[in-house]
Amino acid sequence: MTGKKAWSGRFTEPTHPLVERFNASLSVDKRLYRSDIKGSIAHVKMLARQKIILNKESTAIVRGLKEVEREITCGAFGFHDRDEDIHMAVERRLTEIIGAVAGKLHTARSRNDQVATDFRMYVKEATLEITGLIRNLQQVFYKQAKKHIDTLSPSYTHLQPAQPIRLAHWFLAYYEMFDRDVSRFLDSYKRTDVMPLGSAALAGTNFPIDREWVASQLGFSAVSRNSLDAVADRDFAVEFLFCCSMTATHLSRLAEELVIFTSSEFSAMELPDAFCTGSSIMPQKKNPDVPELIRGKTGRFNGHLISLLTLLKGLPLAYNKDMQEDKEPLFDAHDQLVSILTLSADMLGALRVDKERLAKRSEQGFMTAVDVADRLVMLSVPFRSAHEIVGRLVRHCEDRGITFTDLTDAELKGMDPKLARIGVGDLTPESSADGKKSVGGTSRQSISARIKEMEKEMKKW
Amino acid sequence: MTGKKAWSGRFTEPTHPLVERFNASLSVDKRLYRSDIKGSIAHVKMLARQKIILNKESTAIVRGLKEVEREITCGAFGFHDRDEDIHMAVERRLTEIIGAVAGKLHTARSRNDQVATDFRMYVKEATLEITGLIRNLQQVFYKQAKKHIDTLSPSYTHLQPAQPIRLAHWFLAYYEMFDRDVSRFLDSYKRTDVMPLGSAALAGTNFPIDREWVASQLGFSAVSRNSLDAVADRDFAVEFLFCCSMTATHLSRLAEELVIFTSSEFSAMELPDAFCTGSSIMPQKKNPDVPELIRGKTGRFNGHLISLLTLLKGLPLAYNKDMQEDKEPLFDAHDQLVSILTLSADMLGALRVDKERLAKRSEQGFMTAVDVADRLVMLSVPFRSAHEIVGRLVRHCEDRGITFTDLTDAELKGMDPKLARIGVGDLTPESSADGKKSVGGTSRQSISARIKEMEKEMKKW
Amino acid sequence: MTGKKAWSGRFTEPTHPLVERFNASLSVDKRLYRSDIKGSIAHVKMLARQKIILNKESTAIVRGLKEVEREITCGAFGFHDRDEDIHMAVERRLTEIIGAVAGKLHTARSRNDQVATDFRMYVKEATLEITGLIRNLQQVFYKQAKKHIDTLSPSYTHLQPAQPIRLAHWFLAYYEMFDRDVSRFLDSYKRTDVMPLGSAALAGTNFPIDREWVASQLGFSAVSRNSLDAVADRDFAVEFLFCCSMTATHLSRLAEELVIFTSSEFSAMELPDAFCTGSSIMPQKKNPDVPELIRGKTGRFNGHLISLLTLLKGLPLAYNKDMQEDKEPLFDAHDQLVSILTLSADMLGALRVDKERLAKRSEQGFMTAVDVADRLVMLSVPFRSAHEIVGRLVRHCEDRGITFTDLTDAELKGMDPKLARIGVGDLTPESSADGKKSVGGTSRQSISARIKEMEKEMKKW
Amino acid sequence: MTGKKAWSGRFTEPTHPLVERFNASLSVDKRLYRSDIKGSIAHVKMLARQKIILNKESTAIVRGLKEVEREITCGAFGFHDRDEDIHMAVERRLTEIIGAVAGKLHTARSRNDQVATDFRMYVKEATLEITGLIRNLQQVFYKQAKKHIDTLSPSYTHLQPAQPIRLAHWFLAYYEMFDRDVSRFLDSYKRTDVMPLGSAALAGTNFPIDREWVASQLGFSAVSRNSLDAVADRDFAVEFLFCCSMTATHLSRLAEELVIFTSSEFSAMELPDAFCTGSSIMPQKKNPDVPELIRGKTGRFNGHLISLLTLLKGLPLAYNKDMQEDKEPLFDAHDQLVSILTLSADMLGALRVDKERLAKRSEQGFMTAVDVADRLVMLSVPFRSAHEIVGRLVRHCEDRGITFTDLTDAELKGMDPKLARIGVGDLTPESSADGKKSVGGTSRQSISARIKEMEKEMKKW
Repeated sequence: MTGKKAWSGRFTEPTHPLVERFNASLSVDKRLYRSDIKGSIAHVKMLARQKIILNKESTAIVRGLKEVEREITCGAFGFHDRDEDIHMAVERRLTEIIGAVAGKLHTARSRNDQVATDFRMYVKEATLEITGLIRNLQQVFYKQAKKHIDTLSPSYTHLQPAQPIRLAHWFLAYYEMFDRDVSRFLDSYKRTDVMPLGSAALAGTNFPIDREWVASQLGFSAVSRNSLDAVADRDFAVEFLFCCSMTATHLSRLAEELVIFTSSEFSAMELPDAFCTGSSIMPQKKNPDVPELIRGKTGRFNGHLISLLTLLKGLPLAYNKDMQEDKEPLFDAHDQLVSILTLSADMLGALRVDKERLAKRSEQGFMTAVDVADRLVMLSVPFRSAHEIVGRLVRHCEDRGITFTDLTDAELKGMDPKLARIGVGDLTPESSADGKKSVGGTSRQSISARIKEMEKEMKKW
Repeated sequence: MTGKKAWSGRFTEPTHPLVERFNASLSVDKRLYRSDIKGSIAHVKMLARQKIILNKESTAIVRGLKEVEREITCGAFGFHDRDEDIHMAVERRLTEIIGAVAGKLHTARSRNDQVATDFRMYVKEATLEITGLIRNLQQVFYKQAKKHIDTLSPSYTHLQPAQPIRLAHWFLAYYEMFDRDVSRFLDSYKRTDVMPLGSAALAGTNFPIDREWVASQLGFSAVSRNSLDAVADRDFAVEFLFCCSMTATHLSRLAEELVIFTSSEFSAMELPDAFCTGSSIMPQKKNPDVPELIRGKTGRFNGHLISLLTLLKGLPLAYNKDMQEDKEPLFDAHDQLVSILTLSADMLGALRVDKERLAKRSEQGFMTAVDVADRLVMLSVPFRSAHEIVGRLVRHCEDRGITFTDLTDAELKGMDPKLARIGVGDLTPESSADGKKSVGGTSRQSISARIKEMEKEMKKW
Repeated sequence: MTGKKAWSGRFTEPTHPLVERFNASLSVDKRLYRSDIKGSIAHVKMLARQKIILNKESTAIVRGLKEVEREITCGAFGFHDRDEDIHMAVERRLTEIIGAVAGKLHTARSRNDQVATDFRMYVKEATLEITGLIRNLQQVFYKQAKKHIDTLSPSYTHLQPAQPIRLAHWFLAYYEMFDRDVSRFLDSYKRTDVMPLGSAALAGTNFPIDREWVASQLGFSAVSRNSLDAVADRDFAVEFLFCCSMTATHLSRLAEELVIFTSSEFSAMELPDAFCTGSSIMPQKKNPDVPELIRGKTGRFNGHLISLLTLLKGLPLAYNKDMQEDKEPLFDAHDQLVSILTLSADMLGALRVDKERLAKRSEQGFMTAVDVADRLVMLSVPFRSAHEIVGRLVRHCEDRGITFTDLTDAELKGMDPKLARIGVGDLTPESSADGKKSVGGTSRQSISARIKEMEKEMKKW
Repeated sequence: MTGKKAWSGRFTEPTHPLVERFNASLSVDKRLYRSDIKGSIAHVKMLARQKIILNKESTAIVRGLKEVEREITCGAFGFHDRDEDIHMAVERRLTEIIGAVAGKLHTARSRNDQVATDFRMYVKEATLEITGLIRNLQQVFYKQAKKHIDTLSPSYTHLQPAQPIRLAHWFLAYYEMFDRDVSRFLDSYKRTDVMPLGSAALAGTNFPIDREWVASQLGFSAVSRNSLDAVADRDFAVEFLFCCSMTATHLSRLAEELVIFTSSEFSAMELPDAFCTGSSIMPQKKNPDVPELIRGKTGRFNGHLISLLTLLKGLPLAYNKDMQEDKEPLFDAHDQLVSILTLSADMLGALRVDKERLAKRSEQGFMTAVDVADRLVMLSVPFRSAHEIVGRLVRHCEDRGITFTDLTDAELKGMDPKLARIGVGDLTPESSADGKKSVGGTSRQSISARIKEMEKEMKKW
């Protein structure tokens, strides 16, 4: 078949040269070569087991395929311009090595089920690589949390100081967020872990194949149940892209916070030089390039997701050439997510925190106001009234430029007699945080309990 | 508190009137009223159980809340322009009904955890409604499949006739597709089924609340483990939107096929008049409006997904007002998906198939070519060579305007001696289909086996 | 025709009740009623001018249409469930008012060209409304710039202090940005300003109509040149949505800066209470809700854009029912953009700047480093070397906790003899800014020149 | 500077090796080398003209830059791993060639204005290349239209036969569509054609530069008016991507129609073998791969657009590293659009039409029904009544399996006396089409008029 298309039998005109380049997916899909060859080996062994081809044919093909794999891996493989895709490149070379018997490899299968199988194998591996990297990042958050359980910090809503928290709590928020990402990726994995091979072009095959055996060889948990659907389905790829978008969105939230918290006005945290760059014109600059670039890549993931959703919109069954466009966005999403997860873990691990500044700032901004209100509530003031009283108290302090601890008993009484009875002055960031003993709260007790749970969870990873 | 903002204590200027309208989410979130009131009732009962408020206070509040719910449900509730959101509307009315004690309801919680809880309750219900409708649609495919197990039909790749299939196979392809959708929605449900209530503004609360008890009352399987994350998290909403997009994409594929298959050139199927409309100018038209509108709605789902992903990009923890924009796209996606799933099921159930035309067309277009090739392979011709021989055979027939069954033995021998030995002439669409005995194939045997499995699956729904 | 569909002639079954609701666009498109009636009046007058109908028929129809418009405007119009869309609602009511002669209105047109015409009229008006609001916002930036020409401020790249600027420069950056938006909207307007009416269903009409006359009546600059394209084209709507997305993106950049600059750590600016809200639980909070909500709405615009692009993907000519989904995203984008433009202008106008803090901060952070480097360059040091010298100088100062003005001559000489010759100590934020005399620079001179140009530009608006 | 970062002066730790790779944009932006060097040459010449550097320095740098360009063009340039981006690679090599004087090149500019300038030069060129290719495609439509002015064809709405048209009309619909695309690209070009160089980092420069002179050298029509905006602005890139999306959407509509019209059921058109491929398993297949792949690429463009819009959402002024992500989607959009425009033109030019089949089909499906109705209207029947009468007539014919031409006078009179007076039987596709004499209609007269106009337009391209 060397030099001829796999399908040229009935055609009278040659392919337009531009079309050849346009149709070719080799530059993109050669990345699937390992999956492709692994899949072919399992397929051909099964053909022999089922007496569809001879044992010696199978042996020759397997030997040849291994040689092809070796050549590609070590860079000795000569890809040709006329190889349409990785499947054709492998088979072309196989023919060169073992001769016409190579033509038996394609028995009982089609490129439609072959590429779907290769692609699923790739996505499964990519999923596991990514969940491993997310786990790694979660461990960094866990470590930082342990380190900063006694670091008091403002927390924010609307980027305005809200309540004092233990900084561990902030790190652990991200632990939880990324935990959901792992769960989502693994759920997606289940739907990817279904083998389409054996669906042939779309109708199944005339040969007595054993799909379950091939699936077990390739590590698939199940075989697809409808050949038409099996070759038309790219849901697993879209779902993988969605999981990537979600994780990238989380990384963008983290990145945004790092950019803000390391600004000179906040100066709450510092990124090591190793994660920053300077300016080609302003010698004093130290720019948080890594978090910015991570944030900037969010759009790329959303774009890839839209790309594939758009592709599938209104696409008739079963295979259509449009689907060739499925791999490039997924490969890029995979690469990019691996890259930003790795960097995020390294960067977070090296993040420096200005504990003193955070501690000091925790005392400002009336962040214990809710605690004052809660103490009033404990004296039976309805929460709404307590909220109002404390609102007036804040305004009173702001007008005078003082904080809660500066208030005299007389002033407190003047505002509301109950205020004098609740110890406004002894509220510290620490006591405020440690009041939050509810499950998931920011008290030392709640955080420690959560950390213990995490340690158990981590053992199961 | 009537007429005052829940937070007006420290403010000196009134809100800009445009801002009031702009900030208000009531017109959108009033839809959450049932969840909101249910959540409040559980919360207030817990407050009493934990001795945070008095039993009689709890009783009064619960009674009041039930009255509010009744008023909203029967349309007697007067929403005010100054009610910022559903939470404030409910509390304002509660105060009118039961007086100042209403102010105790907001003890130990914040709108941040309240709205997150309400929204999750809504999404959980919506998810179950949708999976119910998908199951319903799957049953329609199942029924049509049973009805059309003996209808032969062309199948398509690239919208070109590929191989004969039993039409049941086409219906069942969609069954499988939508089965994945249910699985995806249910996985998403798990991550939604976590209660944030008790996280308060973002740090947890000073009161000795019992979150697990509230969760059990509200039907949540778990409570959130980090208060900061709990109020900042909208992943469940994005994931719901993604699941909707995926299902809508599947419906768009179905809709596209219906538009094409009911075109007068295909005339393979017919939509009942009840699902079509005519033209205001061309009296002869019968337009497949329903599938077209379904297809046209795909973009709406993708748009909503992008909307929320964009919103979350780079959003610092914890709550930010941006997040108020989370509900409208989700509510619309929910409504629209309910609508198109319902219509799709009705439409598919009423779909008429032109069996004769499909049967006749299955005999055309050399769709048994792969069977010819496979028979050559069984005579030990390598598949690639067999493919080429049959390619030439097709061209030969096309040039003469004949089909495989018209070929004489002499012609066959002339092309390749083996061709004369394999019974080219006795290949029918039916025998072709029934050759595909592999799991998931289009043979009567494979389809029947799958239908039996389905029947078992359906019992578990 | 009352109670019957405009197209029911050849149908034998009634429409499915769900389908009726599903197909109906009335709740959305009734917003087009003014355009619709204006278009109908011009059309019917033309029919009479061209002797296609009688003058008295035209007069009756025009009178009836005006009555219908009056009814809708004053709320007296009774929309019926069975009115499919605004066109049918108007015609149904017209028939009720003037009788069977109403049936002549639809001569020589179709809903396909009618809705396209109505929609374009709407988009044209919306475009002008929006450009007016952008102009208004630009004026606010202009006014603030004039007010703050002598306010010195840090500028930022990577959210790190970069160089001192006059704050006017920051306001004017947004002036320029929004100027491009107006230009883009107006370019889009040109492509919208083409009248499809007269294309009928898709082929043109058998009647001797005068399209140019109708166009002139309706204020269209041109008539469409291909009837097939004219009814299939929704490019103008997509382009309008893109222009909205771009403007919303600009508003999101502004909003983000306001959120950051009004944070307590930056405290560079303050939003009046009228544009903020408080917290239902934290009485001390003052949250920048308006900019946050503006920022949060960005996704909505991008979502609408994707929605319509997805809709048009792969849509065959000419009209398809999918296109009914074109209006809702556009109407919402229009409303939302009007709302956030209006609020942004009010909010920006009321924005308070902490001049002292900005002035003080302009002196910190070595922001004149580039000026030091430039002065070295003026002594013939290659820029790259100058940059390095100043980099070391910054490190030296940071290590000692001092600023440039604290450096002694000895220290300067120690670093590099040339440093002692260039007057490092007399560099102020003001002198730094005023050194930037290049066109578009931040010197008082450059800014004043630009303001003068603006005043000329504004006269032409 | 060889081996050192342009900004390393104040840094104490080396860059993390992963970060180096992550930050590096060279692999993407080296594509800008021509623009970069052209821009640098103009800049350095200006520096000398303005006496900022010496003439001999300028001469040396220009000579060096030309050598660098030559090296890159001929492939002799050795890109280093440590070259962060194309600007640094060029300057590093320049230093190697001409020594320390190279350091003067960066006087009075920053990478911020440099990259913005390079990128705009690139986008301007790309825009003109694309508009050229669209013009080329329009010419193909024009030629096919001239060829098929006498080919009668059905036209479609809802993919249902609507009215007979001349096929030229269909080709010309696409001519108009792509004409808007050119107009949109050229409007976008205007906003791209503004030079940011001279804005330096963000504030302008201390040197007496002449921006207008540089702009004239580089072919820019204007210089930017605000340095802060100039370096923060990527609107031109987003707008270019939008224009690409719009054009790709048009190509997807065309592609969809080609896939459908070349299906064996439609068989209205045929793609030459050169634009199709076969199947690796089904020897009889001829698949319309090229239009499918074009259609499949639509999502890629929309994805790129979303990518950049997401990136810019909420991005503070001025430059942020996120913006480095702006080039890859744009370069890909450019390449892909060039490719699909070129192929579309070749494919359309080679498209074969089955005139006989189209002619025959034009006679079926009651496509002249609207003409019958119009003739009734000319007898003063209100259009709505006429529509109903013809609706019944269609049903009558369908029930009897006959067409309009088979109707007897008696039958016609039976339906409605007026039907017998209007010559139902002599309505042909040709007479139907030629009745559509309105501007933009499908009559021979209207089409010919439009073609004459086009020929005038084309002369001005």
